[in-house]
Amino acid sequence: MPDEPYVHHLAIRYLEVDQQGVVFNMWYLAYLDDAMTGFLRHHGLAYQAMTDAGFDVQLVHTELDWSGSLGWGSDANVAVWLERVGRSSFTLRFDVRDAEQVVVTAKTVYVCVRTDGSGSCEIPPLVLAGLGAPAG
Amino acid sequence: MPDEPYVHHLAIRYLEVDQQGVVFNMWYLAYLDDAMTGFLRHHGLAYQAMTDAGFDVQLVHTELDWSGSLGWGSDANVAVWLERVGRSSFTLRFDVRDAEQVVVTAKTVYVCVRTDGSGSCEIPPLVLAGLGAPAG
Amino acid sequence: MPDEPYVHHLAIRYLEVDQQGVVFNMWYLAYLDDAMTGFLRHHGLAYQAMTDAGFDVQLVHTELDWSGSLGWGSDANVAVWLERVGRSSFTLRFDVRDAEQVVVTAKTVYVCVRTDGSGSCEIPPLVLAGLGAPAG
Amino acid sequence: MPDEPYVHHLAIRYLEVDQQGVVFNMWYLAYLDDAMTGFLRHHGLAYQAMTDAGFDVQLVHTELDWSGSLGWGSDANVAVWLERVGRSSFTLRFDVRDAEQVVVTAKTVYVCVRTDGSGSCEIPPLVLAGLGAPAG
Repeated sequence: MPDEPYVHHLAIRYLEVDQQGVVFNMWYLAYLDDAMTGFLRHHGLAYQAMTDAGFDVQLVHTELDWSGSLGWGSDANVAVWLERVGRSSFTLRFDVRDAEQVVVTAKTVYVCVRTDGSGSCEIPPLVLAGLGAPAG
Repeated sequence: MPDEPYVHHLAIRYLEVDQQGVVFNMWYLAYLDDAMTGFLRHHGLAYQAMTDAGFDVQLVHTELDWSGSLGWGSDANVAVWLERVGRSSFTLRFDVRDAEQVVVTAKTVYVCVRTDGSGSCEIPPLVLAGLGAPAG
Repeated sequence: MPDEPYVHHLAIRYLEVDQQGVVFNMWYLAYLDDAMTGFLRHHGLAYQAMTDAGFDVQLVHTELDWSGSLGWGSDANVAVWLERVGRSSFTLRFDVRDAEQVVVTAKTVYVCVRTDGSGSCEIPPLVLAGLGAPAG
Repeated sequence: MPDEPYVHHLAIRYLEVDQQGVVFNMWYLAYLDDAMTGFLRHHGLAYQAMTDAGFDVQLVHTELDWSGSLGWGSDANVAVWLERVGRSSFTLRFDVRDAEQVVVTAKTVYVCVRTDGSGSCEIPPLVLAGLGAPAG
């Protein structure tokens, strides 16, 4: 991707750190969700505007690889890239970093759905724009 | 109250324990919510049946006092009593215990509301029964 | 207190909003914890510096009153005041607001403890400073 | 694997269900962690006994695939299998099911570490037993 990635700042909560002194694994999915929303907004798409327009996104696959950990007070952020856009799904790639290095890499596949319950649909121009994707 | 309290068993998650080695305070509100639902069910009222009937409960006040703490693997439970029933609200009292002693006492006031958005309402017989309360 | 309260901005997560479309009650305790940490830092006390100096704070009482709710995307914040300073404990007061009004008021009592496990102690000058309190 | 999988019952909390009426994705990692602990215990290894013996496990990879969702009150469980045992790591496979079908499949790789901070180590007999694995 030629563009700079969107970088989402993380404010790690005390409660997210477990007895081992590191952020418990599940909170990374909270971070990715926040970062995804920020990524869309960065490209001009408020999540609410997407659902108001009758579209939403659903997670169908996620994978995370840990090479390090975060602690409370870590100066951490998540860089987000669009890795792939298909007809009805897209893939985001995430690098979670502390001040010095990447501690988690992740990849998430979202399917675009209609909010009327009719299921998956072709990604509409509104959402493509929010992904910073080249139009069709 | 003459009756034995309802006792809700707690399965404490690893992730609920913080760097100090004790359950982080917010999770007690998760425990109380679980215990409240169990309390209603114990008296024959499934939460879903309540909302299907057009009623729900909203928290308007809660207070907690800590005299101890819980750790991962604690053999813990929550005893629940009905403390008060008013016209549109009721108060539950909770004792969170580990194997040996009470570690948190709590009190929560719920208001009965209609699910149609019309606001608070008189507690209906269905919910009174779920509280194990003497009929009006 | 003559001073302006410290105001902590809230970034509400999608996952904190429940089926009723409002922030589930327990997350308010996460918000208060974040706000408390920010309050200390606002007065020059990093939490880490406090524990490095051998002191910590423990929650012994909290109470919350709801008069409204927050939704995802709410422009919300928490104002924090010091309500009382005793010999070994202090009380913070919190107003959680959305763009228009206070939705939750809360009060929390913390006891100052030594990190060596010896229990509660007189609030040291370091922590008093972090509270913005008049020196003993 | 010839053995029956270990099945861990899930008690889904009201707070885990989001505005879309389904369990928010991050809670599945909480479920897997609970199920992993139950899996070890099922094979006679209490987590505490493992750490007391100087060993712990760290997540290095996880992946989840959603084909459905869970709601509050779902009669759900997680089946756990040992998929692979290496020298210092092992892989568990999870099927999260509601009453009728598998809604999420997941796979998680754990590395065995020493609690003294010296890093990864060969999986000791104690942990092999907890995995129900054939002795080396």
